[in-house]
Amino acid sequence: MTMVASASKCRVCKQPAIIDLPRHNANFCAEHLMQLCRRQVEKAIHDHGMLSPADRVLVAVSGGKDSLAVWDILLELGYEADGLYLGLGIGDYSDESGEYARAFATERDLTLRTIDLRAEYGYDIPTAADATRRVPCSACGLSKRHLFDAAAREGGYDVVVTGHNLDDEAAVLFGNALRWDVEYLARQLPVLPARDGFPKKAKPLMRLTERETAAWCIVRGIDYQVEECPMATGNKHLAYKAALNSIERESPGAKAAFYLNFVERMAPLLAGTTQAAHGDLRPCTQCGAPTTGEMCAFCALRARVGDRPLVPVDVVLGRTRRHGRRPGDAA
Amino acid sequence: MTMVASASKCRVCKQPAIIDLPRHNANFCAEHLMQLCRRQVEKAIHDHGMLSPADRVLVAVSGGKDSLAVWDILLELGYEADGLYLGLGIGDYSDESGEYARAFATERDLTLRTIDLRAEYGYDIPTAADATRRVPCSACGLSKRHLFDAAAREGGYDVVVTGHNLDDEAAVLFGNALRWDVEYLARQLPVLPARDGFPKKAKPLMRLTERETAAWCIVRGIDYQVEECPMATGNKHLAYKAALNSIERESPGAKAAFYLNFVERMAPLLAGTTQAAHGDLRPCTQCGAPTTGEMCAFCALRARVGDRPLVPVDVVLGRTRRHGRRPGDAA
Repeated sequence: MTMVASASKCRVCKQPAIIDLPRHNANFCAEHLMQLCRRQVEKAIHDHGMLSPADRVLVAVSGGKDSLAVWDILLELGYEADGLYLGLGIGDYSDESGEYARAFATERDLTLRTIDLRAEYGYDIPTAADATRRVPCSACGLSKRHLFDAAAREGGYDVVVTGHNLDDEAAVLFGNALRWDVEYLARQLPVLPARDGFPKKAKPLMRLTERETAAWCIVRGIDYQVEECPMATGNKHLAYKAALNSIERESPGAKAAFYLNFVERMAPLLAGTTQAAHGDLRPCTQCGAPTTGEMCAFCALRARVGDRPLVPVDVVLGRTRRHGRRPGDAA
Repeated sequence: MTMVASASKCRVCKQPAIIDLPRHNANFCAEHLMQLCRRQVEKAIHDHGMLSPADRVLVAVSGGKDSLAVWDILLELGYEADGLYLGLGIGDYSDESGEYARAFATERDLTLRTIDLRAEYGYDIPTAADATRRVPCSACGLSKRHLFDAAAREGGYDVVVTGHNLDDEAAVLFGNALRWDVEYLARQLPVLPARDGFPKKAKPLMRLTERETAAWCIVRGIDYQVEECPMATGNKHLAYKAALNSIERESPGAKAAFYLNFVERMAPLLAGTTQAAHGDLRPCTQCGAPTTGEMCAFCALRARVGDRPLVPVDVVLGRTRRHGRRPGDAA
């Protein structure tokens, strides 16, 4: 593979380059691209105290480039890391994503836990989206947070690691800054400490772009699901990414500065503004997870959705297409 | 003029509308568009304590839609407001802008003060840009701030008013947020109180978009300079506006929420972070303006530029075009 003009040389070794990274104003060969990725992950882990060598790590694995890259890099760096894959029931997309996740784990003899929403909880994401009449990403994020937290508690893991990359974090930050939602801004950190029964969470890819994590996978021979989730099409996150990409094309490095300067300069100023948010926590009456109410949000979702007949993903997407605006529609 | 589909009705009076405003999810006739503009300006003045009825106001007039609209609206609202026009020496652009400003004042029998950079200070903006080798907007902004401040002091004005609209402020905010420049963010307020010899400054159009100020001028029969400053072409401000406009098309109202929520929610949190910035001020040894050094930045610019032969604007633009990247260039 090559993502660069053919005559380009690696900045480090002057051998033929395989990728240009405008924000570093340099080209890299496969070996030194991998070195760059490892160093950026090590720097993130070190600067933010994400992981200790003795930690047992649970990686949230989707089968996409980011989650497989972060699992691979953590193992390379010597961490003990298992994976957890959630079967979300989003048609062919979910079937394929599970195959990529299982193939990665099997080839490397790794432990991949699996939870299937339909088999174990009686619903899937299209049905939850249909029942709640909200964007699918809402029920999906809620389900993931709850089940990764619970799996970490039950499995005795010290940290849940997710594959959020620099582009993801910058887009979420842009959305939060567009509304100046101070509570959300204050919580958008690359590491969240364990508290009140919730496990520690860390994002070791916070310094790597999605182009870099894709290149990592290609160089390392990792097959991953390229397709984006069909239920996310048209969500605001993608519009925020597009707007930031237009800025990045004009000013390479602007996106990294946006996110990394936020973490360095602004997040500390906001640190004092959120302590009012979490109130008193007690065990959910259904599942025992910490919650501020009687029943946690996950069990409330299950109660609302769990006994419905499953709705195929195409039906939900068809309705979104009729009512919602899609990228590329006339403004 | 009409900026709306022909069958649309005014939200207020149901007469034929002349403009649609997606962020208000409504259409307006000429009369109720003017009412909306006046009310938004009154609200800005009231919410931020911008002006008192007895204030003597000095409006920074460029000849464009925003500065003529704010002058016109303030007079309509009963304020005593004179104008100040700076001749920046940017070729035909400046010649025309001066004609629009003078015509507006003459037709209404208003006081328009004029300062010509070349005649009174021996330089112009193209020559300053050439000498400093920085973007022209840098020397231009510095010159404007200094000369408006000085004119307000010397003329006994209580407030300097500028025509910055919601699009301008949102774009500047976006630039500051992209870098998380906390000092700049903390100072990006719709009103700055008088302090240490600097006059009070206010932006009464902070709640109106540039489409709304243009509509105001058209409805009121105000001729204004439509052309943008040729020296600003390709600056980052325009790229920030384009990125925000793409977000606004997807989510009408997002741009107003971005700026107005900043002012309401975030600016107060940052208010304590800037007091270290201004240190001890003393009179500039050249002009007497308050400054932290021996000589103020304006006199330093004059010292650097003032004795040079004038450089025509086309020469400076030609160099920018050769070296800089322009909007529409391939990435």
